[in-house]
Amino acid sequence: MPRPFPIALIGQRFMGRAHSNAWSQVSKFFDLELQPVLHTVAARDREGLEPFARRWGWKNACSDWRELAAQPEIELVDIGTPNDVHREQALALLAAGKHVACEKPLAGTLEDARAMVDAAKRAAKKGVRTFVWFNYRRCPAVALAQRLIREGRLGALYHVRARYLQSWGGPQTPLLWRFQKKFAGTGAHGDLNAHIVDMARFLSGEEIVEVHGAIERTFVKEREIPGSPGKRGKSDVDDCVLFLASFSGGATASFEATRLAHGHQNDNGIEINGEKGSLRFGFEDMNVLELCEAGDARTGGWKRIMCTSAGNHPYAAAWWPDAHVIGYEHGFTNMAADICRVLAGGEAEVPLPDFADAYQTQRVLEAALLSARKRCAVKLSSVK
Amino acid sequence: MPRPFPIALIGQRFMGRAHSNAWSQVSKFFDLELQPVLHTVAARDREGLEPFARRWGWKNACSDWRELAAQPEIELVDIGTPNDVHREQALALLAAGKHVACEKPLAGTLEDARAMVDAAKRAAKKGVRTFVWFNYRRCPAVALAQRLIREGRLGALYHVRARYLQSWGGPQTPLLWRFQKKFAGTGAHGDLNAHIVDMARFLSGEEIVEVHGAIERTFVKEREIPGSPGKRGKSDVDDCVLFLASFSGGATASFEATRLAHGHQNDNGIEINGEKGSLRFGFEDMNVLELCEAGDARTGGWKRIMCTSAGNHPYAAAWWPDAHVIGYEHGFTNMAADICRVLAGGEAEVPLPDFADAYQTQRVLEAALLSARKRCAVKLSSVK
Amino acid sequence: MPRPFPIALIGQRFMGRAHSNAWSQVSKFFDLELQPVLHTVAARDREGLEPFARRWGWKNACSDWRELAAQPEIELVDIGTPNDVHREQALALLAAGKHVACEKPLAGTLEDARAMVDAAKRAAKKGVRTFVWFNYRRCPAVALAQRLIREGRLGALYHVRARYLQSWGGPQTPLLWRFQKKFAGTGAHGDLNAHIVDMARFLSGEEIVEVHGAIERTFVKEREIPGSPGKRGKSDVDDCVLFLASFSGGATASFEATRLAHGHQNDNGIEINGEKGSLRFGFEDMNVLELCEAGDARTGGWKRIMCTSAGNHPYAAAWWPDAHVIGYEHGFTNMAADICRVLAGGEAEVPLPDFADAYQTQRVLEAALLSARKRCAVKLSSVK
Amino acid sequence: MPRPFPIALIGQRFMGRAHSNAWSQVSKFFDLELQPVLHTVAARDREGLEPFARRWGWKNACSDWRELAAQPEIELVDIGTPNDVHREQALALLAAGKHVACEKPLAGTLEDARAMVDAAKRAAKKGVRTFVWFNYRRCPAVALAQRLIREGRLGALYHVRARYLQSWGGPQTPLLWRFQKKFAGTGAHGDLNAHIVDMARFLSGEEIVEVHGAIERTFVKEREIPGSPGKRGKSDVDDCVLFLASFSGGATASFEATRLAHGHQNDNGIEINGEKGSLRFGFEDMNVLELCEAGDARTGGWKRIMCTSAGNHPYAAAWWPDAHVIGYEHGFTNMAADICRVLAGGEAEVPLPDFADAYQTQRVLEAALLSARKRCAVKLSSVK
Repeated sequence: MPRPFPIALIGQRFMGRAHSNAWSQVSKFFDLELQPVLHTVAARDREGLEPFARRWGWKNACSDWRELAAQPEIELVDIGTPNDVHREQALALLAAGKHVACEKPLAGTLEDARAMVDAAKRAAKKGVRTFVWFNYRRCPAVALAQRLIREGRLGALYHVRARYLQSWGGPQTPLLWRFQKKFAGTGAHGDLNAHIVDMARFLSGEEIVEVHGAIERTFVKEREIPGSPGKRGKSDVDDCVLFLASFSGGATASFEATRLAHGHQNDNGIEINGEKGSLRFGFEDMNVLELCEAGDARTGGWKRIMCTSAGNHPYAAAWWPDAHVIGYEHGFTNMAADICRVLAGGEAEVPLPDFADAYQTQRVLEAALLSARKRCAVKLSSVK
Repeated sequence: MPRPFPIALIGQRFMGRAHSNAWSQVSKFFDLELQPVLHTVAARDREGLEPFARRWGWKNACSDWRELAAQPEIELVDIGTPNDVHREQALALLAAGKHVACEKPLAGTLEDARAMVDAAKRAAKKGVRTFVWFNYRRCPAVALAQRLIREGRLGALYHVRARYLQSWGGPQTPLLWRFQKKFAGTGAHGDLNAHIVDMARFLSGEEIVEVHGAIERTFVKEREIPGSPGKRGKSDVDDCVLFLASFSGGATASFEATRLAHGHQNDNGIEINGEKGSLRFGFEDMNVLELCEAGDARTGGWKRIMCTSAGNHPYAAAWWPDAHVIGYEHGFTNMAADICRVLAGGEAEVPLPDFADAYQTQRVLEAALLSARKRCAVKLSSVK
Repeated sequence: MPRPFPIALIGQRFMGRAHSNAWSQVSKFFDLELQPVLHTVAARDREGLEPFARRWGWKNACSDWRELAAQPEIELVDIGTPNDVHREQALALLAAGKHVACEKPLAGTLEDARAMVDAAKRAAKKGVRTFVWFNYRRCPAVALAQRLIREGRLGALYHVRARYLQSWGGPQTPLLWRFQKKFAGTGAHGDLNAHIVDMARFLSGEEIVEVHGAIERTFVKEREIPGSPGKRGKSDVDDCVLFLASFSGGATASFEATRLAHGHQNDNGIEINGEKGSLRFGFEDMNVLELCEAGDARTGGWKRIMCTSAGNHPYAAAWWPDAHVIGYEHGFTNMAADICRVLAGGEAEVPLPDFADAYQTQRVLEAALLSARKRCAVKLSSVK
Repeated sequence: MPRPFPIALIGQRFMGRAHSNAWSQVSKFFDLELQPVLHTVAARDREGLEPFARRWGWKNACSDWRELAAQPEIELVDIGTPNDVHREQALALLAAGKHVACEKPLAGTLEDARAMVDAAKRAAKKGVRTFVWFNYRRCPAVALAQRLIREGRLGALYHVRARYLQSWGGPQTPLLWRFQKKFAGTGAHGDLNAHIVDMARFLSGEEIVEVHGAIERTFVKEREIPGSPGKRGKSDVDDCVLFLASFSGGATASFEATRLAHGHQNDNGIEINGEKGSLRFGFEDMNVLELCEAGDARTGGWKRIMCTSAGNHPYAAAWWPDAHVIGYEHGFTNMAADICRVLAGGEAEVPLPDFADAYQTQRVLEAALLSARKRCAVKLSSVK
């Protein structure tokens, strides 16, 4: 019989739903030693909080997240709030001895991120753990890719090509908070490049050592103010950021995040070319990994691997028979399972990102912005 | 506030899991007037029943499904058992005034199916409803296809090409119950052709009037008996059934179900060609519908439609933002939502199959077997 | 130095162009012992014949094909005329000791085909050879598929799924000769099924032994008479023919030819599933063969093989570097090369179809029509 | 009747074959006012020159290209030689009043290129024309893309993503001349980036104004010397060059050329995202253009346009019926046709690149190398 594992959540928007679903589904599909109990959901905005809690099965709801620190039975707090409050929340909760699972990116500024890493280090001495919701690592196809590379199937890596292309940010989209620097910090960069920098680091198992050049651009400089027809305000975050980089092992890397690419809705994708072969993945076809291995001159080529077979593919045994494909939210549920395993003393299917890991991604994002603004290359060693 | 709606389930295998998940997820994602309450799960096999009930949130568990008929508060019973017991269970439960949602195919024999249709007719007079779990109708891409055809986007239909190809049935697979006639009735035919005949009828909105020819074949005639290494027994169901047919509106149709097609794991697919365009769908890429419309000689071609945008695509509003793809089990959840809507006096997104509807599919399957065995064409009017 | 090899051609339409191109290109790309010399082109229709001859480099032109039989220096005559005259021309030219390369299908009727086979047998005694232009055999991807199957890479064959789908035959297309029985014999059947029956036989290396059922259908029964706006005439050939069959080794087969499938322009395609794997090919992506081999449960899947590497793929060495793709007409040029090789005593890359071979295809087409019309299965042993 | 148009060619390797084929095929497929006559082929290497001339139909052969300048009847000279001799040959031939069609890239150095542009300007005053063989512009799918963008179908351009990925340059490939700076100048950069910079400029109709950052990398630093087993020499050109740039209209652009990407053999590809839609093309599937237009929220998506319909697609009328796909060499033949049209006073289907045009591409390549080496952004205005 699994041990009950009381958790709390801060946030009730998109990520609030995705995380609530993960915590409530995980014990139905996975056999775990810990069984998450949905203890309390907290959110500033009282409105809708009761129905949200009822809908998702949270036993309690409160409008002040600080109360969570004071509840002794809560073991883990899941932070699903905007970036600018991650630091304050994480520091308080870690200090209270709660494990923390924080939504990505780790923080709104590098300074905040650094403070969080320090707090995590202190908490680790008391056995407290941190996690960051880089959910795409746990698409089975991505997890398989990580294993294949770690096993040496691609040999030395030559090229990493990562993109996160969306299309919802055209001129007709109004001035949401995501287009305002004071709320969002950056645009596509923090939102999307954060994911693909994490994925590139996760898959390659290497760190980025230099950014060679970057473009940060805002195409749509004014947008209609929501609720004020005809009135327009300034959109002052990037619509896209592109940058070139080098990995510690020598591989080149290119990253592109944009909200202005018609035909791409949630196209989080990567291709890696190595000495012995290549791999590629695109989230819009998330159950598939493509692999091309060198050495078969007659019948070689890109192979479309359906990563859904129980027993052969990471996480697949928990779900359905072969080729009964899974979807977006399953990445979160798979991550919830790995968090439970790790906290019960076991192992995750593939590495779980903690604050220190997410801080490395944050440094890369910072280096890219510096490079774009200074119009020159930036070594990561200079970004702390 | 939705009204609690107590339901029961018979079965705890693959379909037991899929249906339990649907009933427990539906109120989290859909706003409905009825809120399913997981009252009782029944299964012959006591072993594992308690953990199953606990895992999925069923309040009660019992080993005799007949008890469900006697429970006045249960409003709907979901039958997730093998085909040979559908009749007995459905008749008893309908007589007790329960709505019945039955797993497909409707029954193991045409005679059973007829009896179930008759029982459904009698029950309907008292307001009792029947449903059959043809879950693939409720993939958003399939539902969109149905609407486009109903709206006339393809014009008159010329060709329907349906396939359900799997690959798990090779010689190395042991003699499971699915390969034995006494348990399974047929092989790929009842299991897979049932789905694609339903889908072809659903999408076209037409009935099949004639089967022109058919092949029923068993390639692997002996298989190892599970648990008896080295001992082999007879596999006496079809490995594949193919047939050609005509629809009432004149369209030709081809159907193929097999478990011997390497490269296809759960490839439930269809293409329809009409006067004004074509549509195609394949479950392994279930979030996509492909459409090719005539009339644009310069920039025409197959269009890949990602059926995930809230507001534009059936069921999508309940789930995630654009291109945050969904998976296999979501079809069941979407169907559970439609059942709740219909029982609350509302409308389903696309038509829900009842016993009478599923009986038409059963007649087509029968006609195909007759045609294969008699080596000649069979008119549907002769199959009752 | 290659030996000059004088040839003649009858016909100056679509096939006249394709064959002229093949004969004039073959010596530029292939190193052969025979060098085709374009001696004479013959065509009933004088108009345009001189410019045609000049354009393609034919040294002579004449309006009576019978003159070719009388020219001693001509060694091979290429028949690119409508089906109804193949018999007369082939018999006369074979009798005159010319090798004959005839456009497919072999003849307009089974009786004509039989007479041509008999003539070919007689001529063979004098060393005269026959060929039929089933050009698609010599797409490199198709030739590779044939070799892989012959080598046993798929093991025993289970299923052959062949289609030839086009879209140009809608109601707006006028009453061309191809829609009139008196000129064309059949519609899509003879034109398209001929190709895919040949391909299925070629790839499988087996013969069809039974047709299990068939549909022959004319959707567009009237069409505008070309040059007579507003006047309509009867379209009395099939728009589509579908049939199911069995191969000698037990594999099931399905064939579909239609001109009413929007989204398919020249979609000549086939998939073959065997015990150890599957292969598929579609002409619209003609440089690619897809292969899925069983046995790799973790990283198996469909592999996209670009069949363009010199040294590894049939015919590729003659053309360009890797992935510098080739096109439609190259199949004819590759066939011309194989004809030259065979006539010089060498070997073709893959088997060349002769009259006897093409006659087997013709028998299958006949059996399919019989099955459609009699509404029952037809054994090939009954079709002579 | 077309007017005979005597031409000469310098070179007999890969490009010698491709150009010879184009000049000999063009009059068979296109109706032109000029009919190329293959007058003389010149090549330093006498060996094989006679057979080459005979095979391709060149009437004369000579080992000194200077003789061509002296032949009054030759109207155009086609330069298919290595980059380092383009300047000398072009200057002499232009001075002699010959039209010149030069293989890409225009020259080995920017200085050479500038001298060639100057010579072309002087020659233009006497009606002499220059052309550069950027053959990929004349794939029908690319030509269609150019027209659609020019017509405004994409609106303002946001992103250009260009790649030219090959896989033949791994460590096992010996030290060919292409890997030695003294012969090749650069590696993948001049060979491959030249093509995609031209294509990006051609399609966008804009010029690059800044390079924001670049990577130039040599992964394989030593290779076996051909003919000297066991002996290794230095490979001193780039294996890959990546760079980021901005177009004059504000669009961002990324370019990547590499010979180390398994799974890509000749993957010359581009995607362009604009305000109203997106386009993409990849040479390995060269008959297809993909288009996604904004504004159809329900049935929008990427459309696969088969660019093979006569009358609707550039160059298609010259070749075969719909979806009878063409191949690599057809781009050269299409270009030969456009050269003939322009020299006869007509118009090319899409713009033909001349020396001045190719010089702009050369400047971009130079700026990219400067950026990589200086580790900073480079404005094009500083590269002359």
